[in-house]
Amino acid sequence: MSLALIIPDRKLDDLQQRLTQALPDTRIDVWPDIHQPDAVEFAVVWKQPAGCLAALPKLKAIQCYGAGVDAILADATLPTLPIARIVDPSLTRTMVRYVDGVVSHYRLRLDQFSLQQRQALWRPKSPRRLQHISVLGLGELGSAVAAHFVSLGYQVSGWARTAKQLEQVQVYHGAGQLAAAVAQADVIICLLPLTQATQGLLGQTFFSSTKPGAIFINVARGAIVDDNALLDALQSGQLEAACLDVFSQEPLPAEHAFWQHPAILITPHVSAVTNVATVVEQIADNYRRSQQGLPLLNLVDVTRGY
Amino acid sequence: MSLALIIPDRKLDDLQQRLTQALPDTRIDVWPDIHQPDAVEFAVVWKQPAGCLAALPKLKAIQCYGAGVDAILADATLPTLPIARIVDPSLTRTMVRYVDGVVSHYRLRLDQFSLQQRQALWRPKSPRRLQHISVLGLGELGSAVAAHFVSLGYQVSGWARTAKQLEQVQVYHGAGQLAAAVAQADVIICLLPLTQATQGLLGQTFFSSTKPGAIFINVARGAIVDDNALLDALQSGQLEAACLDVFSQEPLPAEHAFWQHPAILITPHVSAVTNVATVVEQIADNYRRSQQGLPLLNLVDVTRGY
Ligand SMILES: NC(=O)c1ccc[n+]([C@@H]2O[C@H](COP(=O)([O-])OP(=O)(O)OC[C@H]3O[C@@H](n4cnc5c(N)ncnc54)[C@H](OP(=O)(O)O)[C@@H]3O)[C@@H](O)[C@H]2O)c1
Ligand SMILES: NC(=O)c1ccc[n+]([C@@H]2O[C@H](COP(=O)([O-])OP(=O)(O)OC[C@H]3O[C@@H](n4cnc5c(N)ncnc54)[C@H](OP(=O)(O)O)[C@@H]3O)[C@@H](O)[C@H]2O)c1
Repeated sequence: MSLALIIPDRKLDDLQQRLTQALPDTRIDVWPDIHQPDAVEFAVVWKQPAGCLAALPKLKAIQCYGAGVDAILADATLPTLPIARIVDPSLTRTMVRYVDGVVSHYRLRLDQFSLQQRQALWRPKSPRRLQHISVLGLGELGSAVAAHFVSLGYQVSGWARTAKQLEQVQVYHGAGQLAAAVAQADVIICLLPLTQATQGLLGQTFFSSTKPGAIFINVARGAIVDDNALLDALQSGQLEAACLDVFSQEPLPAEHAFWQHPAILITPHVSAVTNVATVVEQIADNYRRSQQGLPLLNLVDVTRGY
Repeated sequence: MSLALIIPDRKLDDLQQRLTQALPDTRIDVWPDIHQPDAVEFAVVWKQPAGCLAALPKLKAIQCYGAGVDAILADATLPTLPIARIVDPSLTRTMVRYVDGVVSHYRLRLDQFSLQQRQALWRPKSPRRLQHISVLGLGELGSAVAAHFVSLGYQVSGWARTAKQLEQVQVYHGAGQLAAAVAQADVIICLLPLTQATQGLLGQTFFSSTKPGAIFINVARGAIVDDNALLDALQSGQLEAACLDVFSQEPLPAEHAFWQHPAILITPHVSAVTNVATVVEQIADNYRRSQQGLPLLNLVDVTRGY
């Protein structure tokens, strides 16, 4: 039996080495060099080419090498197997620090001052008054982001699929309450998973319900947003600025209108990248669990899509 | 007797109104409309034209309308009088939030990603490992900034004129220890006052003692830095980037090399602007104290220059 790493276009030496250390008796193959496909019982996966999981007849479980499983589920030939995802306090902390820094960037008007710098314009202005932050998606990442901004004294609202209680967060839920969840927000942070229900969800209707001049931050998945609706909202002033870390197509194509837009800040999907050192133990653990027939940690609900 | 506001080029309605409320029996004149120069006993001052304080024969005390008194002391005709400055927890908090945001900006590589965005370049990279921060000047602002970064888990060193103890801060002092104070620092934050001892202090010798690739933030006064030495340090890679909020000449002249430098972020002296609402009470208090012959609060040591 063996474990396969199916993570194209990435250097996997470190991950392979650490897993070998954690699981000394297990053979670890790196796709596409799978020694014996019918020996693979466990796969660690990120953006797998369609069909390559179906080609492993003895596969028992899939470990997503990140928090979001949308790319795994997009494979029409995906075998019906338990899928686990990464839940990692260190990843969560990284995401909190990213959005914290981006909110500060806008609060301090570094966006405006940078544009003015290019024109040698000296225009002092006090910080933007950002008082209310709305977080879409209140799972592992969203609830931590919401709590962080509560701790800094912001008013915080949030939106999830199901009702819940979070300290000092005004929680809305369900499609009918999305508009209310963002109506007062100076900053909107998207931390939803990409599912059938959220694909293209943040479109024209959504942006017409935001507070005029709001700032939009997407650190979830690009396809949750309708790019043209976002551009229209920036054009009309309904949004003042957007920071985008994720895109429908990645790398973002060189000709995409986002690149040269003065009100858009682009980061190349870096907000919270899986850290080999902190996740190797949970992956090894899930491997052992699948061998022992125990339920995986951080199991995904495939019908819900997250 | 009256109080004069000598703060050129600024709208003073709000300050005048609030001071009138706090000191209902006192006449408040706004320079240059001084009703009766020989009735003025107290002046609130920011960047006064040379000579205008000497023209007030009954002046008893000077209240600087900010934290730094360098512009007041630069007046060769300055009468020998007690000078107070602003010390305000709200101003301190504003400064802490500014440097916090700027450090996050660099940690998240928003500087690099913005430059790459202009060229439609997708180059994912993990955050900069900024671990050690050095704060030059450990007074009201510097000590709060140092404590903030200690609370975030950074290693922090600092430099002052005299020896002192600050929790979890490695404190250096005196000209002989400046190089040691910054030798390990990934980020150097200047919060020194501009005095005869600090004018031009951060020049070629200083930058040759920084850790190669350090980031430099100046939120104190422009004239503490030798502009050409700073440009040289960026050119050689001795510094990786600089964020400058203050300049020898403000507004920064349109032709200055800083404006178009790709490794310099310019903000137009906005890091911690005096907030009328939070300082009016200490100004009124100092007015009453000067009337009663009591020592002013937040008195400046004119011989030291800060
Ligand atoms: N940019 C990056 O580097 C990066 C890194 C990590 C993760 N991500 C993205 O962030 C996403 C969120 O991660 P997570 O770990 O926080 O996920 P999670 O724990 O599964 O939480 C998802 C949250 O979204 C809510 N939600 C799901 N579908 C919804 C719907 N149709 N309407 C309203 N709310 C809905 C869920 O509501 P309930 O609470 O009611 O279930 C839950 O609160 C991931 O899916 C991934 O795509 C991006
Ligand atoms: N950009 C802005 O918006 C803005 C806003 C507010 C203030 N500022 C600037 O920030 C400066 C600092 O403010 P603050 O309230 O923190 O001042 P402060 O309380 O007077 O503290 C000054 C600090 O600098 C140290 N220092 C002075 N001369 C020195 C020298 N020759 N060598 C080494 N250390 C020296 C002092 O050392 P000791 O502790 O040993 O006395 C003290 O720690 C102000 O002077 C002002 O120019 C800028």
